[in-house]
Amino acid sequence: MDDTLKLMEREAPVMSPRLRALAQDFLGDLREMSFDGVGVSRETYGPGETAAMQALEHLATREGLETRWDAACNLIVRLPGSDPSLPVVATGSHLDSVPEGGNYDGAAGVAAGLMALLALRERGGTMRDVELIALRGEESAWFGGPCYFGSRALFGQLTESDFQTPHRDGARTLEDCMRASGADVDLLRAGGSLLDPSRFHSWYELHIEQGPVLVAREKPVGIVTGIRGNVRHRRVVCRGEAAHSGAVPRWLRHDAVLAMSDLLVRLDEHWRVLLEWGEDLVVTAGVVETNAREHAVSRVPGEVTFALEYRSQDVKTLHSFEALLRSECAEVGAKRGVAFDLGTPSLTDPATMSPRVVGLLEEVCQAQGTDYEIMPSGAGHDSSVFANAGVASGMIFVRNDKGSHNPHEAMDFDDFLLGVQALAGAMAQAADCDGEAVR
Amino acid sequence: MDDTLKLMEREAPVMSPRLRALAQDFLGDLREMSFDGVGVSRETYGPGETAAMQALEHLATREGLETRWDAACNLIVRLPGSDPSLPVVATGSHLDSVPEGGNYDGAAGVAAGLMALLALRERGGTMRDVELIALRGEESAWFGGPCYFGSRALFGQLTESDFQTPHRDGARTLEDCMRASGADVDLLRAGGSLLDPSRFHSWYELHIEQGPVLVAREKPVGIVTGIRGNVRHRRVVCRGEAAHSGAVPRWLRHDAVLAMSDLLVRLDEHWRVLLEWGEDLVVTAGVVETNAREHAVSRVPGEVTFALEYRSQDVKTLHSFEALLRSECAEVGAKRGVAFDLGTPSLTDPATMSPRVVGLLEEVCQAQGTDYEIMPSGAGHDSSVFANAGVASGMIFVRNDKGSHNPHEAMDFDDFLLGVQALAGAMAQAADCDGEAVR
Repeated sequence: MDDTLKLMEREAPVMSPRLRALAQDFLGDLREMSFDGVGVSRETYGPGETAAMQALEHLATREGLETRWDAACNLIVRLPGSDPSLPVVATGSHLDSVPEGGNYDGAAGVAAGLMALLALRERGGTMRDVELIALRGEESAWFGGPCYFGSRALFGQLTESDFQTPHRDGARTLEDCMRASGADVDLLRAGGSLLDPSRFHSWYELHIEQGPVLVAREKPVGIVTGIRGNVRHRRVVCRGEAAHSGAVPRWLRHDAVLAMSDLLVRLDEHWRVLLEWGEDLVVTAGVVETNAREHAVSRVPGEVTFALEYRSQDVKTLHSFEALLRSECAEVGAKRGVAFDLGTPSLTDPATMSPRVVGLLEEVCQAQGTDYEIMPSGAGHDSSVFANAGVASGMIFVRNDKGSHNPHEAMDFDDFLLGVQALAGAMAQAADCDGEAVR
Repeated sequence: MDDTLKLMEREAPVMSPRLRALAQDFLGDLREMSFDGVGVSRETYGPGETAAMQALEHLATREGLETRWDAACNLIVRLPGSDPSLPVVATGSHLDSVPEGGNYDGAAGVAAGLMALLALRERGGTMRDVELIALRGEESAWFGGPCYFGSRALFGQLTESDFQTPHRDGARTLEDCMRASGADVDLLRAGGSLLDPSRFHSWYELHIEQGPVLVAREKPVGIVTGIRGNVRHRRVVCRGEAAHSGAVPRWLRHDAVLAMSDLLVRLDEHWRVLLEWGEDLVVTAGVVETNAREHAVSRVPGEVTFALEYRSQDVKTLHSFEALLRSECAEVGAKRGVAFDLGTPSLTDPATMSPRVVGLLEEVCQAQGTDYEIMPSGAGHDSSVFANAGVASGMIFVRNDKGSHNPHEAMDFDDFLLGVQALAGAMAQAADCDGEAVR
C-alpha cells in the first residue's frame, strides 16, 4: 500500500467456529433455494438472484450490520469504522449463477466477505469503513454476451445498449428485468448512481478458481496478478474450393479444412514459443464447422467456419498476436489458395491487479503459512471493472476441482477457510492503515 | 492385347457428320426429357433412367441394331460380328444421374458407344460381336451408398443386402424400384443372370472426367490406368476435455480441435512426401464439426468429429496409409492427451485397368494425333466392376471444365469426338483381332 501507511495494532481476524457454521449455513441455504433439479440457477436480475440477496440482507441485519440497496439493486453491507471520512475497504462478488451452474461461483466470495466483516468486528473493528458489496448480474449467460451489470452500474458505465440487451428468452430486455427487480433505471440513466473510484481505498474479491491450475499445483489458494483480456473472432470463414475428393489431385486442391488446420497448428506453435518467451497467452478455436449445405465425406471441403479467441493479461500481447494471426492467414492463404475472412474482432481489455494489493496478499499468506500460487485469471470477474475504474484491486482464488459453470464444482471448505483467512487478514491491514487510497 | 493377335485389314472407323448429328440429337433429347428445373435427374431404377434407356432402344432399333434387356434391365445393343463364337468386345456406361446432375455423366459414354457401333458397321463390320451395354444404377446418390447395381448384376454380385437397401425417400427398397422398372429380381436372386467374364474379350468405357486434370493439363482426353479404391472413416471422434477458454493454461489443456488439426497437418505432410515417392494418393477430411451441444467461443473444445477418406489405385498404399494414420493418432493422442476413435472404416478395392488395353488406347491416340494424359480415375466407375471381375478393361476420359454431379459440367463436343474416335479405333482393333480374351 502507500509507503506512509501506519498500521494500528489490533489482533488478526479469526474465523471462529460460529463464523464457519454461519457461512456453511448461508451457502447451504442458497443452494437449497436456487436448486433447479440439476444445479443452481440464480438468474441475472431474476427472482433467484433477488432471493439470494434478500437472504444476505436478512443475515447481515440479524448480525447487526448496516445494509442498503443502490440504484442497480446491488446490496451493500457496511461495518462502520472509527474514521468514516477515510476511503473504504471493500470486498464482494456476485450472487447470480449460470443456468444449471454451481453454487460457489460468486456466492463463495459473498459468504467470505460477510465472514471477513464479522471477524473484523469481533476483533474490535477497523479504522476505515469496511463494505461487502453483493453484486448483480456478473454472468453473461442470461443476456447473451454483455455482463458485469452490477459492478459497471457502480461506476456509471451502463449504456443504452446494455439496457436494451434482450434476455435469452427473447421476450424481455435487461431494463425490463432490472425494473422488475426494483432497480432505479431512470436514476442509472441519469448518471445519478455514479461512485467516485477514490471513495475506495482498495477492493478484494475471493472467487473459486474456474480452471484447474491450483489442483494441478496442489495449492489451496491463488493470488491473481491480472485478469486476462480477450480478442474474439466469433466467426472466421476460410474459403477454398469444393471438389470431388477422388478426382482432384493434391496440386489442384484448395482444401479449406487443411488450410484451417495449418493455420491453427502454426498459431499453436507460436503460442508455445510465446509462453517460453514469458508472454501470458491462451488461444482457443472452440467452434468449428464445415458448411452443412455442401459438405460430404467424398468432397474436398470448400468452406469451414471457426471461432478464434485469444486472451492475455497484456494488451500489447493481444495486439501483437492479432498481427501474427493476420500474417499467418496471408501465408496459409497464399500457400493453399484459400482466403480467410476474419470478420471484425471484439476486444475486452485486460485488467491489472494492484501490485501493492498483490504484495499485501502475499505477505498475509506467508504470515498465515498458507501456500499460494501467483497466477492470472483467465476468466473475467467484476474485479476487472473495479481495477479498470482505477480502484486498487486484488483477487484470491480458491482451489476448485471440476471447473465452474457446472454443478460439479468441488471446493473444499478447508481451502475456502484459508482463502477467507487471507482475505480478512489483508482487509484488516488495509482498513487499519492511514495511507491514502492506493492505485 | 494378346501377343498372337492378328489384325484383319479394314479401314479405321470414321465419325461421319450423320453420326455426330445423331449423337448430338440423342444427348439433346436426354437432357430435355430429364430436365428437372436445375439440372437433369435420372433416378437409379426410376422413370427417368428407364425413359433414357427406352430412348436408346428406340434409336438403336431404328438404326437396325439388335437390342435386348437383361434380368437387371440393363439394355444390350449388339452389332453381330462375322464370328459370333469369339469373345465379344463391349463398351458402355450408365444412364442414371445424381439429383440435379449433369447430362453427360454416364450418358456421354452411352452415346459414344452407339456411335462406335454404327461407325464400325459403316466401315464394314467386325470379326467379333460388338456390344454396347447401357447400365442401370451407377450413382450412389439415390440409395445412400451402395452403387454399380447394373454392372454388378451382370456378374451375379447383387446381394440380399443390396436388394433391401432403402431408397433415399425411405419408403421403398432397391428391390421395389427394380421390380417397378421391370427387373427380374427372382432370377437375379437365383444367380440366373450371371455372365462368365470370359465371354468378354475386353471392355471400354468413355466418361467425362470428374476432376480438373485435363483442363489443367490442356489435353482433350485421358487414358485411365486404374480406378482408385478408397478407405472411409465416416465419423472419427477426437475426445479431449472441454474447459474454460480463459482459465485453463496450455499445459493443462486437452484441446480436441488442435489435436485434429495436428493430425491432419501430419497426414497432409505424409501425403506430400508419398506423392514425391511415387505413390498414388488423395486424402480428404470433408466434414468437420465440434459438438454443438457443448461448443462455445469461450470453451476449449472437448470433442470434434470429422470424416476421413483416402483413395489410391494401389491397395497396398491404402493399407499402409491406414497404419500410418493409426500411428499418428497414437502419437498426437499421447502428446495432447486426447483419444481418437476411428470407428470401423469401409474399404472399396481399387481396380487396375488392363495394361494391354491402356497400351492399345495409347497407340490409337498416337495414330490419330490426339494428345492424351495418362491418369488415374479418382471417382468410381462401372469399369472397376468389369476389371475386378476379370475383364480386360480400359477407360477414356473426356475433358470437362466444371466437375461432374452438377448441371454446370462443360464438355466440348470436339473433345468428345476425339474421345469417341479413340474408343471406336481401339474397339475396331480389338474386334478384328483373333487373339483370345485378354486379362
